[in-house]
Amino acid sequence: MQGDQSGFYPNSKKIFVPGKLHNIKVAMREIFVNPTLARSFGVEELKPNLPVTVYDTSGPYTDPDVKIDIAKGLPRLREPWILERNDVDQLDAFTSGYSNERLADKKLDELRFEHIRMPLRARKDANVTQLHYARKGIITPEMEYIAIRENQRIDELMNDTELWKQHMGDSFGANIQSKKITPEFVRDEIARGRAIIPSNINHPEAEPMIIGRNFLVKINTNIGNSAVTSSISEEVDKAVWSCRWGGDTLMDLSTGKNIHETREWIIRNCPVPVGTVPIYQALEKVNGKAEDLTWEIFRDTLIEQAEQGVDYFTIHAGVLLRYIPLTAKRMTGIVSRGGSIMAKWCLAHHKENFLYTHFEDICAIMKAYDVAFSLGDGLRPGSIYDANDAAQFAELETLGELTKIAWKHDIQVMIEGPGHVPMHMIKENMDKQLACCDEAPFYTLGPLTTDIAPGYDHITSAIGAAMIGWYGTAMLCYVTPKEHLGLPDKKDVKDGVIAYKIAAHAADLAKGHPGAQFRDNSLSKARFEFRWEDQFNLSLDPDTARSFHDETLPAEGAKIAHFCSMCGPHFCSMKISQDIREYADNEEALAKGMQEKSAEFLETGGQIYK
Amino acid sequence: MQGDQSGFYPNSKKIFVPGKLHNIKVAMREIFVNPTLARSFGVEELKPNLPVTVYDTSGPYTDPDVKIDIAKGLPRLREPWILERNDVDQLDAFTSGYSNERLADKKLDELRFEHIRMPLRARKDANVTQLHYARKGIITPEMEYIAIRENQRIDELMNDTELWKQHMGDSFGANIQSKKITPEFVRDEIARGRAIIPSNINHPEAEPMIIGRNFLVKINTNIGNSAVTSSISEEVDKAVWSCRWGGDTLMDLSTGKNIHETREWIIRNCPVPVGTVPIYQALEKVNGKAEDLTWEIFRDTLIEQAEQGVDYFTIHAGVLLRYIPLTAKRMTGIVSRGGSIMAKWCLAHHKENFLYTHFEDICAIMKAYDVAFSLGDGLRPGSIYDANDAAQFAELETLGELTKIAWKHDIQVMIEGPGHVPMHMIKENMDKQLACCDEAPFYTLGPLTTDIAPGYDHITSAIGAAMIGWYGTAMLCYVTPKEHLGLPDKKDVKDGVIAYKIAAHAADLAKGHPGAQFRDNSLSKARFEFRWEDQFNLSLDPDTARSFHDETLPAEGAKIAHFCSMCGPHFCSMKISQDIREYADNEEALAKGMQEKSAEFLETGGQIYK
Repeated sequence: MQGDQSGFYPNSKKIFVPGKLHNIKVAMREIFVNPTLARSFGVEELKPNLPVTVYDTSGPYTDPDVKIDIAKGLPRLREPWILERNDVDQLDAFTSGYSNERLADKKLDELRFEHIRMPLRARKDANVTQLHYARKGIITPEMEYIAIRENQRIDELMNDTELWKQHMGDSFGANIQSKKITPEFVRDEIARGRAIIPSNINHPEAEPMIIGRNFLVKINTNIGNSAVTSSISEEVDKAVWSCRWGGDTLMDLSTGKNIHETREWIIRNCPVPVGTVPIYQALEKVNGKAEDLTWEIFRDTLIEQAEQGVDYFTIHAGVLLRYIPLTAKRMTGIVSRGGSIMAKWCLAHHKENFLYTHFEDICAIMKAYDVAFSLGDGLRPGSIYDANDAAQFAELETLGELTKIAWKHDIQVMIEGPGHVPMHMIKENMDKQLACCDEAPFYTLGPLTTDIAPGYDHITSAIGAAMIGWYGTAMLCYVTPKEHLGLPDKKDVKDGVIAYKIAAHAADLAKGHPGAQFRDNSLSKARFEFRWEDQFNLSLDPDTARSFHDETLPAEGAKIAHFCSMCGPHFCSMKISQDIREYADNEEALAKGMQEKSAEFLETGGQIYK
Repeated sequence: MQGDQSGFYPNSKKIFVPGKLHNIKVAMREIFVNPTLARSFGVEELKPNLPVTVYDTSGPYTDPDVKIDIAKGLPRLREPWILERNDVDQLDAFTSGYSNERLADKKLDELRFEHIRMPLRARKDANVTQLHYARKGIITPEMEYIAIRENQRIDELMNDTELWKQHMGDSFGANIQSKKITPEFVRDEIARGRAIIPSNINHPEAEPMIIGRNFLVKINTNIGNSAVTSSISEEVDKAVWSCRWGGDTLMDLSTGKNIHETREWIIRNCPVPVGTVPIYQALEKVNGKAEDLTWEIFRDTLIEQAEQGVDYFTIHAGVLLRYIPLTAKRMTGIVSRGGSIMAKWCLAHHKENFLYTHFEDICAIMKAYDVAFSLGDGLRPGSIYDANDAAQFAELETLGELTKIAWKHDIQVMIEGPGHVPMHMIKENMDKQLACCDEAPFYTLGPLTTDIAPGYDHITSAIGAAMIGWYGTAMLCYVTPKEHLGLPDKKDVKDGVIAYKIAAHAADLAKGHPGAQFRDNSLSKARFEFRWEDQFNLSLDPDTARSFHDETLPAEGAKIAHFCSMCGPHFCSMKISQDIREYADNEEALAKGMQEKSAEFLETGGQIYK
C-alpha cells in the first residue's frame, strides 16, 4: 500500500487554491523553478523564473498533512457539499439484495473494508445529477472546483507581465483571456451536455474533475482482477499508483472473485472518479452464462454498484439484435467483452438487448445517485481491418439516440469509441461522433494505429490517442504494454499512464491550452539554460529523466554543467547557441554592424564558460 | 559482436527472390503461419493461411549460410554491379591527405580495421550516381532490387485468390495492381528526384534501399561515440543491433576519439546505407573551434568519408548569415549541432557559410562517389515554442534552391526536417517542404509533439513521426528514450527502433500500402483465432510479446488455449465472438430465421470448446 508520497515530485509542494463562490480548496502541485543565470559579456545576473502549477490527480496521497490509512479510506471531501444540497436521504440498508447478502456473510469479514457506510440516495422525485443542477442554473462547488483546477493558476502568472512574456512570447497573451475557464462556463458546458462531472453522491472521496472537449484532455486507467490472477491489495495498490502518475479516472474491470469487496476498497481509497462495466459482475452472478442474464440481476447490480459509489457505468445498450450479423464478416468479430456478452444474449433469446429495452429504467437508477453513462461501443473494431465499418457506425447512431433519452432525464452522458483505427480513418470517428451524439463527450480506447506490435500497444495507441484528442476526444482510455497479452503489473500501469499523459498533453498543446504550453516552454527554457534539475522536475517522470541522465554523467557537478553526455564539453550546440544569442541580443552590437563586432566576439566568445 | 542470428525471428526463414532484369537475389524474411482450426457446428477442419513476407534490414547477419567475421567485414554484394558499369577507377591511394596520414600511423594499428581497401572513384568526367543512370533511362540492379524488395511478394500471394480474400477482404484487391512497384517506376521516381538510393560505390556491402514517399516509410538510427563515452566495438555492436530490429539507414554521429577508424569498422560491417555529418569530424580536426574551420579542411573530410563509403552527408548549407539573427528571440536558439557550428563560424568571420558558397565544389565530390545530399536543417526548432518560425522556413527555402543545384549535377538529395512541432503545426512542414524542394524526399527527426517528457521522447516523437510519415515524409530519424539526457545504450537503440517501426508502419497503413495491411490482417486473424504463436511471430518483437504473455500464463498449453489472462477461461469476448460468427455464418440458419435457430444455438453453443 502507498503511504506518504509528498516527496514524489522533487522541489514541489501541494498547494490549495480557495474558491470564491464556495468554501472549497482546490488541490494542485506547484513546481519551483530555479532562477536563470544570465550573462551579458561576462557580467552575471540571476533572473527569476515563474513556478509551474500542474494538475494533480494524486489526491491526499501526496499531501503531507494527511495521514493515509487504507483501512479507513480517504477523507470525504464532497460530503458536506452533497448534504448541503438537501436532496438526499441516508438509507438504513442497501437497496441491492446482493449488497445486503454480501454484508451479512461472515466468511467475507476478513476481506471486507471495515468502515462500510450506508448509502445516500436522492429523495423521492429529486434528481441529484450535476446536469440537473446546471440546467437549473446552479453553479455547484464541484463546478467551481473544476474551473479553478483547469486554469492551473495561469491568471496569477500572467500578472507578472514581463516574466510571462519571457516564458510565452509577446503574442501569446492576447488570446488567453478568452480561454479562461470560469465557473459559469463549466456550468454552461455541463448544461449543454458537452461535458460531464462524474460524481456519484456515494463517492465523496473523489476530487471533482470534468470530461469535455473544451477542457484539458483526460486519461482513464483500467485495473481489475481476473479469474486468473490478482488480489485485492494489488488492485488498490495499482489504483493509487495510477492516480499518482496522472490517471484522471479509474475503471475497475474486475471479473474474478470478490468483485464486490474489491470495489469497496478501491472506491474508498480512490481520489478520482471510478467507472465500471456492470455487466461483467452480472455475468459472474450467472456463472459466466450470458444467456442466463436477466434484467432483474442486472438492475440489482447497477444499484449495488451505484450505492458503493461508482461514478460512471459503461452500458452496452447500443448492441442491437439487428446489428449483430454486421459483425460476421469481420476479421476479429466483436472484441468488446460487454458487447459480446450482449450479442450472445440477444442471439440466444432472439430478443432485443435488454439494456436497450430497459434504458429508461436504467435512467431512473442513474439519476438517483448521479452516476454518469458511458455508453459502451460494444461493436468497436478489434483490428485495423474492421475499423469504421457498418456495425460500428450503426451502433454509434443508436448511442446518439440513447444520449437524447438520458439527457431528457438530466443524466450525464459520454460516448465510448474505438479501438483499432488506422490514422487516415481516425478523424471520421470524431466527426461522426459529434454529429450523432450532439457533442456529448467522446471517450476512446486508443485507438491503436497498427496491430503488429503486441508488447508496445501503449505506443501504437498513443499515436491514435494524441490525434483523436486533438480532434476533440475528451478522455483517452489508456492502453498498457501488456494489451492483448496479459494483465498489467505496476510497471505496465505506469508505462501506460505516461504514454497517455503524453498523448493528452500533446492534444492540449495542439488545441492551444495556455497551461499546457506554459509547462512546455518552462521545461524548454530550463533545457536551453542547462538547468538540469528544473528540466527533470518539470517532466512527467522526474525519476526516470534524472536516472537516464546520471547513467552517463552521474556526478552532481554534471547537473549544473553546461554540456551533457551527447556531445561532451567541447561540442555543444546549445552552448554555441547561447554564445550566438548573447552576441545577437546585444542590440548595440547589431546597431554598430556585424563586421565591427566579429573581432570582439572572437575575443570574448572563446572565454565564456571557461 | 553479433554472430549468427538466424533464429532471431521464430518460425521464419531468410529467402532470396531472384531478379528478372539482372542477376540479383533479393533478401527477405518469410514468416510461416499456422493453419486455422475452423469449426462448423462441431466439425473441425484445418484451413491453410498465407505466409507473411517481411522487409528485412538485418543483412547477412540473419543468413545461416553466411559466416560472419567482423574483422573481415560483410560480403561485397554490389561490387560486381558497380564494376560492370565500367565507369570507376580503383585508386592506388586515398585522395584525402588525412586518410593517408591515419593509415600510415602505426600507433593506430591496433584500432584499425585490418582489410582496408583502396577506394573507387568515378572516372574523369563520369558521374556514378543512381540519379544520373535513372535520367539516362538505365534501370540499375539497385533499382530492380528495390522494386522486388518493396513489393514484399504481394503479387505472388495474390495468386491464391481465395486465401488472399480471406486475409484482405473482397474489395482490397481491386486497387493493388496499380500500387505494384516496378523497376521502371523506381527508375522514374529517382529520375524525378522524388526518391533516392543512398549507395556510395565504396560501400558495396549495403543492400539497396530507397527513400521516397511513394515507397515504404523508412527509419534511420543514430549511433556514434562522443568525447564522454563509448568504444569502437560498442558502436559496431549498436550498428548491427539497430539493423537487426529494423533500422533502414544508420548515421554515425561520432564526435569523440578515433572517428576515422570507428567509421571504417562500422561501414565494413553495415548492411544498410551509412550517413554522417562531416562537419562534426572537421570540427574535431580544429580542436573544437568552429571559427578555425576552413573549406580546405572540410573538403578533405568529405573526400576522406566518401572514400570510406559514407552513403549520405548531412550538409548544413542553408544556415545563411542573414538567418542567424532570426534565432535570437527563440526559446532554445539553434539546437542542431551542425547548424550552431556553422552559425558560429559565420558570425566569427562575418562571412557567408562556406558550405553554401562552395556548394558546387561539394557537388563535384558527391557525384564522384554517389554520395547523396541530406540537406541539413541547421535552424530546426528545438522546442515546441520555436516550431515553424521564420528562421526555420527561411532555411527551408534555401534548401530548395540548393536542391536544384544538386539536381543540375545529377546528385541525389533529401531534405532534413524538424524536430519539435506540436501536432497542429506538423502538416505545414510537409506542405512547405514539398513546395520549396520540388518533392525531394523529406527526412525528419520525429517531430516531438511535446517537450515535457524527457525519458520518453521515443513516444513524444513517434506520435509526430507517424503523422508526418502519413503526410508524406519518406524517412523518419529515430529518437531514443535517452534523447536530451544521454547517449543511448543497446536497450535504448532497440526501444527507439521499435517505436519508429511502429510510426513508419502506421504511416504505411494510412497510405494504403498493401504489404503493410497484409501483415496487420494476418496478425489480427491469428489473434482472433487464438493462434498465439503466430501472433508473437508476426509482431515487431516476438521475444517481448511472448515473454509478456508468459508472465501470467507461462504454461505451453496456454499458448493454444482459447483464452488469455485478461479475461480468463469463462469470459472471453473473442471466444464468444467466434460462437457468434459460427452462428451467423451458417447461412441456412439465417435463412430459416433466427428464432428457430436460437434453441439450437443454446444447445450446441454451450458445448463448443468444452
